[in-house]
Amino acid sequence: MIYEDYAIFTPGPVKMSEEILAIGAKQTPYFRNTPFSDVTFACENGLLEMVNAPADSKVIFLTASGTAGMEAAVMNLLTKDDKALVVNGGGFGQRFVDICATHAVPHTDFKVKNTNLINIESLAPTDTHTALIVNAHETSVGHLYDLDAMGEYASCNNMLYIVDAISMLVTDPLDMRKSNIDVVIASSQKGFALPPGLTMLVLSPKAQNKLQDINSLYFNFKDYLKNGERGQTPYTPAVTIMLQLEARLKQIKERGGIEQSINNAKDIAAYFRQSIKTLPLKEYTPYMPNAMTTLTPTDGKSAMDIVNDMEEKYKVMVCPNGGPERELVFRVSHMGEMTREYTDILIDALHDYYAVTRS
Amino acid sequence: MIYEDYAIFTPGPVKMSEEILAIGAKQTPYFRNTPFSDVTFACENGLLEMVNAPADSKVIFLTASGTAGMEAAVMNLLTKDDKALVVNGGGFGQRFVDICATHAVPHTDFKVKNTNLINIESLAPTDTHTALIVNAHETSVGHLYDLDAMGEYASCNNMLYIVDAISMLVTDPLDMRKSNIDVVIASSQKGFALPPGLTMLVLSPKAQNKLQDINSLYFNFKDYLKNGERGQTPYTPAVTIMLQLEARLKQIKERGGIEQSINNAKDIAAYFRQSIKTLPLKEYTPYMPNAMTTLTPTDGKSAMDIVNDMEEKYKVMVCPNGGPERELVFRVSHMGEMTREYTDILIDALHDYYAVTRS
Repeated sequence: MIYEDYAIFTPGPVKMSEEILAIGAKQTPYFRNTPFSDVTFACENGLLEMVNAPADSKVIFLTASGTAGMEAAVMNLLTKDDKALVVNGGGFGQRFVDICATHAVPHTDFKVKNTNLINIESLAPTDTHTALIVNAHETSVGHLYDLDAMGEYASCNNMLYIVDAISMLVTDPLDMRKSNIDVVIASSQKGFALPPGLTMLVLSPKAQNKLQDINSLYFNFKDYLKNGERGQTPYTPAVTIMLQLEARLKQIKERGGIEQSINNAKDIAAYFRQSIKTLPLKEYTPYMPNAMTTLTPTDGKSAMDIVNDMEEKYKVMVCPNGGPERELVFRVSHMGEMTREYTDILIDALHDYYAVTRS
Repeated sequence: MIYEDYAIFTPGPVKMSEEILAIGAKQTPYFRNTPFSDVTFACENGLLEMVNAPADSKVIFLTASGTAGMEAAVMNLLTKDDKALVVNGGGFGQRFVDICATHAVPHTDFKVKNTNLINIESLAPTDTHTALIVNAHETSVGHLYDLDAMGEYASCNNMLYIVDAISMLVTDPLDMRKSNIDVVIASSQKGFALPPGLTMLVLSPKAQNKLQDINSLYFNFKDYLKNGERGQTPYTPAVTIMLQLEARLKQIKERGGIEQSINNAKDIAAYFRQSIKTLPLKEYTPYMPNAMTTLTPTDGKSAMDIVNDMEEKYKVMVCPNGGPERELVFRVSHMGEMTREYTDILIDALHDYYAVTRS
């Protein structure tokens, strides 16, 4: 197995707990029966509670990675009669723009920089839009938007509010009721710290009412909702990951609930950022989530070289920028089974690295 | 965990080996790097060899279940200018018909019954078709078609030959060169005996040349082929299942190659069928694959009752018919980590069941 003895700080896959990994070693059970329906219902109820979903919200479980969730949301919820305002602050915002273009959904490419959109009202174009689409955490650069401010704006302007929460759920606050969110997209391999391959969409009643009849079997949400009534999916689900999700939701609850998970990530992120303050590394954005820290070398070093050296010399995996700025920025995830002690592995490696390269 | 101490004879998920399960308990590694590209290449080469693919064939790895592979094949390879001949002998044939209809691909619903199509030439409609689509093993009823005969027919009539091999690869013979197959669809949770969530498509050069520009990100094969050149996928792959696939392909090879796997399944299937000959159970079709046995009670018993009793009284999982004939047929899989000894659990249960119900 590759990278078995490496410390992992990449923003997906992330460090997993022993309890969850143990389930990965169990025989995958048959699933077209009541015991597995109960697993699905437990996952659905746990997720709905975690995001404080409005009454009668439903969850769709896609066997697929996150982009499928983003694309399927647009396919099922928007048509040529809509006009989507797509927040584009990096690679994943651009992906939503591409998805709208691919599916002929009229949209505005709302390019943003150096703002968390707390004042979206004054920044957004003034023409009418029917939907607001945002990656709550633009993972390519580690930038978190203000979900409340955007939700108020969406609500005042009667827009369907679609939030890709893939890389901030579990580590950063998200409240569907408080922020008037209609759709939340989540994925298994980020804050949930499960293997990749399962994507979940929470649909509010408003979103459910807007579902279209679409030309797709695999992404047909109406079909998923119908099968979901009996705790099933139209096609083979990611059975093992669903079992791990059920256990993970229970684990989060037993450890003190979603607030505790968020507080832990907040503590780890603050600890990490404080611990490297003396190094020639600058925080890339003032709007970083708990999920991740993005750093820019201030001494002219290549960020990509740091990533490679961490891997080769210290057996520590951090991640280059997800976009064109690979030489300028690198990313450190605080998602998953993180502790201060585990984070020390990276902190020590970075301090040693600079001590050696300076000497 | 549900069904942990049950013997499993369902046609997906199937019995998995300890070696493969152990990988499921390993931390999922980061994958945007050379070590994981090498995993992808190993999987690709192993698959190409297994199906004896023509030179320059390529493999697409979709994070999705089998239906996504079926649908994506039609989306990427066929247009409104095509006309597909779709073999429809049950639930999965019908699914291909539905997929063609959904994507506005002209097609003939070629309903077949009680034939393995060895004489397809005389059975097929005489109008011109550009593609032949078949589920090599119609899993809903356990019916295997003759891939050679269909391949010769497709070749003579200049048709693109698309084979869903999901539930027969590894247990039953498939040779792309010998049978002139252009596309093979496979999935992780059948003969490969891995967790569900990974679907693979082998594309011959002829299929690659026919790829369309399609309105989809997640299913865009051209994008997958481009990323595949460096051993990567456009979106997060099912990393853990890919690592398990690499190990499984190696395992198959070490055990004597694909021929040994097929022979083992053939032996197990024959052993099972012979061992229950004295019971009031009839083979549903004369064209059963090694992968599965389908049985019909001849004493008026409900097949669904047998399935339920096996589960409740004997902790043995078999499977009802995948279609409307749940009361008439049940299914027993021989895919995965099967031995005669393991199969004895089911054989003994069936014999005991009939001894008890008769007395």
